[in-house]
Amino acid sequence: MHTLTLTEPMILQSGAVLNSVSIAYELFGELNSKKSNAILLCHALTGDSHVSSSANNSHNGWWQEFVGPNKTVDTNKYCVICVNILGSCLGSTGPISINPDTQKAYNLSFPIVTISDMVFCQKKVVDYLEISQLYAVIGPSMGGMQALKWVIDYPFAMKRCVIIAASASLSPQALAFGTVARQAITSDKLFKNGEYSSDEKPVDGLSIARMIGHITYLSKKSLDIKFGRKLQEKSDYGFKLGGDFQVESYLSHQGDKFVDRFDANSYLYLSKALSYFDLEKEYGSLEKAFESVQAKLLIISISSDWLYSPEQIKESVHVLMKLNKAVSYSEVFSDYGHDAFLVEPDKFSDLVEPFLEAEYVA
Amino acid sequence: MHTLTLTEPMILQSGAVLNSVSIAYELFGELNSKKSNAILLCHALTGDSHVSSSANNSHNGWWQEFVGPNKTVDTNKYCVICVNILGSCLGSTGPISINPDTQKAYNLSFPIVTISDMVFCQKKVVDYLEISQLYAVIGPSMGGMQALKWVIDYPFAMKRCVIIAASASLSPQALAFGTVARQAITSDKLFKNGEYSSDEKPVDGLSIARMIGHITYLSKKSLDIKFGRKLQEKSDYGFKLGGDFQVESYLSHQGDKFVDRFDANSYLYLSKALSYFDLEKEYGSLEKAFESVQAKLLIISISSDWLYSPEQIKESVHVLMKLNKAVSYSEVFSDYGHDAFLVEPDKFSDLVEPFLEAEYVA
Repeated sequence: MHTLTLTEPMILQSGAVLNSVSIAYELFGELNSKKSNAILLCHALTGDSHVSSSANNSHNGWWQEFVGPNKTVDTNKYCVICVNILGSCLGSTGPISINPDTQKAYNLSFPIVTISDMVFCQKKVVDYLEISQLYAVIGPSMGGMQALKWVIDYPFAMKRCVIIAASASLSPQALAFGTVARQAITSDKLFKNGEYSSDEKPVDGLSIARMIGHITYLSKKSLDIKFGRKLQEKSDYGFKLGGDFQVESYLSHQGDKFVDRFDANSYLYLSKALSYFDLEKEYGSLEKAFESVQAKLLIISISSDWLYSPEQIKESVHVLMKLNKAVSYSEVFSDYGHDAFLVEPDKFSDLVEPFLEAEYVA
Repeated sequence: MHTLTLTEPMILQSGAVLNSVSIAYELFGELNSKKSNAILLCHALTGDSHVSSSANNSHNGWWQEFVGPNKTVDTNKYCVICVNILGSCLGSTGPISINPDTQKAYNLSFPIVTISDMVFCQKKVVDYLEISQLYAVIGPSMGGMQALKWVIDYPFAMKRCVIIAASASLSPQALAFGTVARQAITSDKLFKNGEYSSDEKPVDGLSIARMIGHITYLSKKSLDIKFGRKLQEKSDYGFKLGGDFQVESYLSHQGDKFVDRFDANSYLYLSKALSYFDLEKEYGSLEKAFESVQAKLLIISISSDWLYSPEQIKESVHVLMKLNKAVSYSEVFSDYGHDAFLVEPDKFSDLVEPFLEAEYVA
């Protein structure tokens, strides 16, 4: 993992100023001499810069099957850059970082960060690497929102852009789930207004937040297929208040795993950044937002994704088409809901691989 | 409100025994001399016996527009009986009741109760009123599950039955939301294993549980229409972690209102009863479950209901048709999701009124 520290204070979208911003990133594959083979991969809400295993870090990454040598995003050809987002707890500056002014962790004194601010930091890394034009930007989920900001704010900074399962804003339903998840964290007995210790973290609240999120990442049908109403190693109900069903222990397990790897304050800030993302509000209309776009776009939705529904994603596609932008749109048929890009990456390969190949010069 | 106290100990479906069970109920309209005009109305998860305003209680009820003089369920013609469900905190015996053995509130020592147990109590009231056959049983949501149990367990106890937005079991997705809601309550700092005081109740957890539930009662589209991404009396984001959107303050308000009128322990038991309801599991198959049915059925689903989807409800309808039972099925087209039976009662009147009229003799 590399770190770029900004020498200038960063002025955030909110107007707040953040000093000594550190930006963590990883590289996969080699940058060619012309620096024309770089692909920026933008990660989702709780992801990190470790997309795939590499010489420096042999652990599997979050998109291991999709990115790597001879994979869809082929690191034998492309140099993949993945930047940990601002506000995260997994490398870049965020609420757990030490505030240089106070020498204490920011916690809730950390300023609100937005998708724009995250993209600004990514651009700093690309500039630092002296890449004048990225071959492509790729982003799934919240990474797709970042990718949308890239093609709008830096229209000549990439040739191509792949946006997977991301819309121009969260739906009111997704906003609703987000706010309930954040309340679960802030009302945890150990939250202490964000000043919890590492020994006593608000794990119950963070786990509930994750479980709510997780349900929205899966389709109704995938829960039917995977769990149905099957019981946990029992033939009958326990007639007790605790869990009986496999889907219950599965969710608990997801919650438990998550609290080990993620910080509650950071989750609050990133969830809030998601809820604030709204291209229509920011630019006045989707037409005005997408006016500047120069890159060739591939936008992909997932048939069973109810968090970022195909209907909502198509709103952006229709505006881009009306503006005569170079946009391809495809709906991947999958029963796995929003998480399909992680669960069935092969279904995305058929679309992403030829799209990336089109202008590639070895 | 009337109360019937069972003189015999009640043996629950779990095998546990409950002594001195009190069953609260209300009557709307007059029972005729033949006792042939009684309609049992089964309420939903957090409802109560007060369906509509009456001479004894002028407050509006939970189905005020649907039940009353000259309304769809016309109390000038019918005598409507509504029984508060076992396990509730709104009249009948539940976790807040005093355990006669200990002279203290049951709290979590209350045994698990099921839809079967609730229906058993309702039958006791009907027997007490010396009604040999109900004219009809009507139930929306969890009340519809009770109605399904009625037609199976007491096949000759009613002529007709209306089941609205209820399936033969909860879907795995609904199970998942239920378990997260219950965890929000039990992990609240004031929950104290159910032994909270009336001054210090687990209001945060109960509010979160309610908000999760509330989101599932509304359709995605109804949230789009009602709130969209509109802000609370502000023209721009507050750039703070708290709520900015109208949908957020609306949900908080729903949570706040709920904690004033409902008990957290009771919510746990009733939510668990919902999750345990499974006709297929209980009878071996839906075919076996519905074999005994004699009543004429009207089953209604709501087009935008994703908690009890039309697809799931149709599974029961198909089996009933295969068994050559007298079943009518209709899908009400509404954008309001599961709550449509409360929000747009008129859409149900067109179906329910003629169905009830069919055999009515003044």
